[in-house]
Order: sequence, then structure tokens, then C-alpha cells
Amino acid sequence: MTQAPKAVHEIQDDLPGPRAELAGGAAVRLESGERLGPVHVAYQTWGTLNEARDNTVLICHALTGDQYAFGIHPVTGKTGWWESMVGPGKPIDTDRYYVICPNCLGGCMGTTGPAAVNPATGELYGTSFPIITIGDMVHVQAMLLDHLGIEKVMCVIGGSMGAMQVLDWVARYPDRVVSAVPIAGAARHSAQNIAFHEVGRQAIMADPNWCGGFYYREGKRPEKGLSVARMAAHITYLSEPALWRKFGRELQNRYMKSYEGFGADFQVESYLRHQGASFVERFDANAYLYITRAMDYFDLEADHGGDLAKAWQGTRARFLLTSFTSDWLFPTSESKEVVHALIRAGVNVSFVEIESDKGHDAFLLDEPDLFETTSGFLDSVARSLGF
Amino acid sequence: MTQAPKAVHEIQDDLPGPRAELAGGAAVRLESGERLGPVHVAYQTWGTLNEARDNTVLICHALTGDQYAFGIHPVTGKTGWWESMVGPGKPIDTDRYYVICPNCLGGCMGTTGPAAVNPATGELYGTSFPIITIGDMVHVQAMLLDHLGIEKVMCVIGGSMGAMQVLDWVARYPDRVVSAVPIAGAARHSAQNIAFHEVGRQAIMADPNWCGGFYYREGKRPEKGLSVARMAAHITYLSEPALWRKFGRELQNRYMKSYEGFGADFQVESYLRHQGASFVERFDANAYLYITRAMDYFDLEADHGGDLAKAWQGTRARFLLTSFTSDWLFPTSESKEVVHALIRAGVNVSFVEIESDKGHDAFLLDEPDLFETTSGFLDSVARSLGF
Repeated sequence: MTQAPKAVHEIQDDLPGPRAELAGGAAVRLESGERLGPVHVAYQTWGTLNEARDNTVLICHALTGDQYAFGIHPVTGKTGWWESMVGPGKPIDTDRYYVICPNCLGGCMGTTGPAAVNPATGELYGTSFPIITIGDMVHVQAMLLDHLGIEKVMCVIGGSMGAMQVLDWVARYPDRVVSAVPIAGAARHSAQNIAFHEVGRQAIMADPNWCGGFYYREGKRPEKGLSVARMAAHITYLSEPALWRKFGRELQNRYMKSYEGFGADFQVESYLRHQGASFVERFDANAYLYITRAMDYFDLEADHGGDLAKAWQGTRARFLLTSFTSDWLFPTSESKEVVHALIRAGVNVSFVEIESDKGHDAFLLDEPDLFETTSGFLDSVARSLGF
Repeated sequence: MTQAPKAVHEIQDDLPGPRAELAGGAAVRLESGERLGPVHVAYQTWGTLNEARDNTVLICHALTGDQYAFGIHPVTGKTGWWESMVGPGKPIDTDRYYVICPNCLGGCMGTTGPAAVNPATGELYGTSFPIITIGDMVHVQAMLLDHLGIEKVMCVIGGSMGAMQVLDWVARYPDRVVSAVPIAGAARHSAQNIAFHEVGRQAIMADPNWCGGFYYREGKRPEKGLSVARMAAHITYLSEPALWRKFGRELQNRYMKSYEGFGADFQVESYLRHQGASFVERFDANAYLYITRAMDYFDLEADHGGDLAKAWQGTRARFLLTSFTSDWLFPTSESKEVVHALIRAGVNVSFVEIESDKGHDAFLLDEPDLFETTSGFLDSVARSLGF
């Protein structure tokens, strides 16, 4: 008998890197009013905190990201998801800045989420985990900084859902942030994006191995459902030109006579199937349900009485916003709405739309314009702080 | 015990309307080289064939359409899918034209498809059904016209997959078509569209009730998988403005404290769930697999040695192409590629891009510009024929 690879919920307590217990194990009050505790946050750091304790860059990861932005990922064995941006001499320069990347609340790489133990029952939470929001993620990150004795960060940076957290960070803690870099983000999730998330959730919940969210105790995993969810989402991260360049329409086997189990005739299909299958090895299905829902709830305009400018009124933080021309998931128009609101709020803001045909994923890829503008912006912030 | 509603494959032999047995029950040779027979085609007609037998308009339906373009649908009880375009005094004027709409090959409303009986086994085909192409659908439609004694049609018209058939019709039978009206179509399926189809197929095949395609004999239906496939596809038929206008972001229950089975918090979710659930009552999952694959294979340029113009070289048919500005599934650029090839081939072609924010679905909706241009074009074709 071969040993099945361990599920994410079976390994999350043994992953490398520090894990902080917040507020001495006391419960954290969530935006819903519910209390959750104890809350643990797994995180990674690179570089050294300077004496003035003012050189911290906080990285907020995207939906399926985690704390392993740099270095070898302990589950996949691949390099970190943001190696292009983080490291010695990179835009987020670990020789110069103290870089922290926590796994978000609701995640599955060591931070408390639906795959953690519910102390009230001794069982994993599953769908008894309370609802969480982007605001809760940000609140927990701020508590982590308290735990680490860091009052103020020189920059909060992130792409996609990370950008949502960046925008929320400054709204919640205007005095703890010197600068903010939301990349390929939005101040609220669009109806189309909610719809795509809903398809992913339905795919997971349609899998009989989901077991109403309590698959852990059944020794099961809704792998097929999660895989379909990942495939659907993956398409939205790419652009038609990117898909076309990668795969064209090369049929691996044009005009098959029978379907033979509907094999993957097109390279794009094989690729998607691979994406789906490898994803389930590193991600928990319930975490996907809770985090996508947190993104769907995100609406800073509604949170501020219908006037987005009020979210950032009075902050002295400087902003750099970046969008990509071929990103149809978080299009330039949504970054521009944020820019306009920041200008109305009298905030110091720069905005760059980068010409790219790589779609939403561009923020993770080799984009020299992104590196150059981010690097220059961070350097200018550091200089303003005197280092 | 309540009686479960009958599955589509259980009612398809009893649906109202004529059904023709092609070629006296002999097998039809498919593009793959396989033989399929007998082939039955269920169809609907409206209006009267004139004495010259030259007033036929052939309607090709889209992926999830059927022969019930006009009148009450026998399964859903709703009005036909193209009532906006078909009927007395409508652009496809049943007082003036003889209108035929067949259910496509591979379909599930009476035409031979994977839910039909395989005479070799006495069982329903399931995934033993051979691979089919858009070309096979067109070939079978031409055989239906032979069966009805109609040599030539005044117009072949259709949207989406229907437009693919229209384009293929003229390429295959240049002398049998007086005019062609492909709406919101393309000469080949894009990588992105193939990818979305693949997600839908994976969702169906991931459903344990699919049973490798032989769910009929198990008394099962992969309803959840088909429902997820439909939801994913449905998003691609709409535009963000259309989704926004329909649903905004109104939370039915903002900041729920627990997920309670991840209920549909947003109106867009309830809507999608309803779309998915009602679809499974009228569509067969295997038909969805085979027809989406046929669309994915469609590539007229590849079929003609890499030169799309060769597809229509020498035809005397007149073309009217229509696209919609907010259609991101079959964008205007793809219609323009066809127009350019037709011009290179010396074909008489008109092209209209209609300003609409309704997305791909616009071809099914109330679009006065579509009605006006189609109506005027068909009138001009009829006049050229002398009626």
C-alpha cells in the first residue's frame, strides 16, 4: 500500500517558521461580533529590524498565497510566490528592510482557520468556524505587529486580495502606516468576481467528500471540487493573449474518434487539470470557502457611508497604486476609483497603469515596470525616514 | 413518496413536434471517420414553404438551445428562446418565410445524441457516443433539408454556436445558401473559451453521479456537476454592467455570524444557483460534454490550410455579421476577422457592431438595432428572390 500524501490540515502545525499566539491566547472580537480564540498567526520574516524600528515592510498575500513569499515552499518545494519582488537587492530589499509576511486569518498554513482545532470541541472547526472579513485579517495582522513590538510600518504592500488588505489597513490604522502599495486591487469586489467565486464554492460544496465542511473527521478531502474551483479561478487570472501564447490551440490529438474518458485534447486543458490537481496538495477547501467569502464581502465604500474618500480622510500615508492593462479581474478602472477617492481625501497618491498582456497574474510575474516603480517608491519612503 | 421529475433522457422520445429519420435509417459518416446511425432529427417549423420552395430560413441554435425557438417550450413551460426574433411580423417573419429550427446533432431534445439508444447495444449511448463536430451538425441539417425536399435556403441564421454553424454551412454548401447571418460568433473557439468549457466538463465528470457517462442505467444524474458547469458558463454570457444592474452588491444578509451551509448571501448567487438548478431539468449532462467539445474543435482557419478566406472562396451568398460591444466571450474582434476573410474572398458582406452592455446574451434579448438590421437584411434578400 502506498502512503497518500498528507492533507494540508494534517501538516499545518508542523510547518517551518514562527507562529505567534495573539493577545496571550485571549479571544479576538471579529467584525461580525463573534469571538474567536486563541488565534495563532504563522509568519515569515526576512532582513533585520533597525534600531529605530521603522524599516518594516508588511506583505499581505493573495487568496491562495501564504507566508512563504521568499525561499523554498515547505509543501510544494518551489520557490516563494513573490521571489520576483522580495530578496536582497529586489524591490522589497531584504538587505535594507525588515520584511514580514503573515499567513492570513482563515488560511491553512499555520494561521487559525477552519482547519484549526476548535478549543470548544477539540475537533477541527470546519464550517463551525465563524465568518471572517478582510477587516478581520487586517486586525489580526495589527495584533501580530503589537506582539512583535512594531508600532509603525514603513509600507504595507500586496496584490489582489493583498491589495484589499492594504487599502483596509490605512483605513483602520491611518497612523501606523507610512506608505501603502496596493497592486491590481479594488475597493470592493465586483458582481462578476463574486459570481466566479460562487461557482468555485458551489463546485467544492457539490463534492460529496466535502461532508458539509467536516471532511477532516471523515478522513476525506473534496479534491475534485477544489480542483474545479481552482481551474475556474485560474482562467480569470490570465488574459486571452496569455492563454493563447502559452497554448495556442494546438490539439494534442485532433479528431479523436471517441472520447476515451474525455481526455485532455488541448494543452490548455492539461495545464488547467495540472493546476487544479497540484493546488489541492497545498490548500484546504474550507479555507477557500471562507477566504473567497471574505473577499466578496469587501466594500470599503459601503463601510464608509457610500463615500470612499472617507475611508482615508486624514491619513498622512503615501500611496502607490498599480494596475495592468490586460487584467480583467481587477481592471484599471477599479484602481482609478481608488485614486480618485484618495485625491478627494487629499492623500498623496501615485498611480501607474502598466502595459502588460499577462492578465491579473502580472503582479506575480516578471514585470520590469512594476519592479522599477515599486523599488523607486520604497526607496523614496525610506529616504524620507532617513535611512 | 413524491415522484421525481423525469430526466431529459426519459422524455426525449415523447416531445411534441416532427422527428425525421435521415437517409432511411442508414448510418451517417462523421468527420472523424466513424459511422453513426440511424440518425433522427427533431425539428420545429413555422410558416409555409412557398411554391418556388425558396423562402426557407434555417435557424441554428446555440449550445444550450433547442428546436423550440418560438412557442411554449414543452419542458420548461416558458416561451421560446428566440421569440424576440421569430414570429408573425418579427425579423424572422413567419408570415413570410418558412422557418425551420432543428435540434442539433448531439442534442437532447429528440435529435440523436449521447442520450439516444445505441442500436448496437440496446442501451443509451452515454460516452460510447462518437465524437461530433460543428461540421457534423451542419451535415445532418443538410440531410434534413434533403429529407424535406428543400434544395436551397434563403438564409441560415444563428447566434453563438449557431453562428459557428452558419459560417460552416456556407463553407460546406456554398450553393445551397442565399444568405448567411452569423450573430455574436467566431471562426474558431478561443483558448479562453476552451478553458471555460473545460471547467464545465470537469465539474460534470467530477460528479460521482456521472458514472463515467453511463448514469442512465444507474438511474442517476450528475445534477450538481451540470449545475456548476451551467453557473460558470452563465457568467461568461453576461457583462459586468449587466450583472451589476441586475444584482448590484445587495447583500441579502450582510455580516452573517456563521455560514449556515454557506447560504446565498448575494442576489447574484441566488440567481446563479437558480440558473444551475433549472438547467438540469432540460439538459443532458453528456450532451453538454459532447457539444462543448464540438465547439472547442471548431477552427475554420485550420480546416482551410491556415487561410480563412479559402473557407468561403467562390460563394455567392450574402453575409450579415453582428457583434455586441460588451460581449467578451465572442468579442467584436473575432467577427471582424471573419469580415476581413470574407472581403478577401470577394464575398458580399455587411457588418454591424451593436452598442450594448448586455454581454454575449444580447443576441437573445431586446436589441432594437439587431431586429432592425436583421429584418432589413432578410427583406432585401427576399426581394432579390422576388417575393
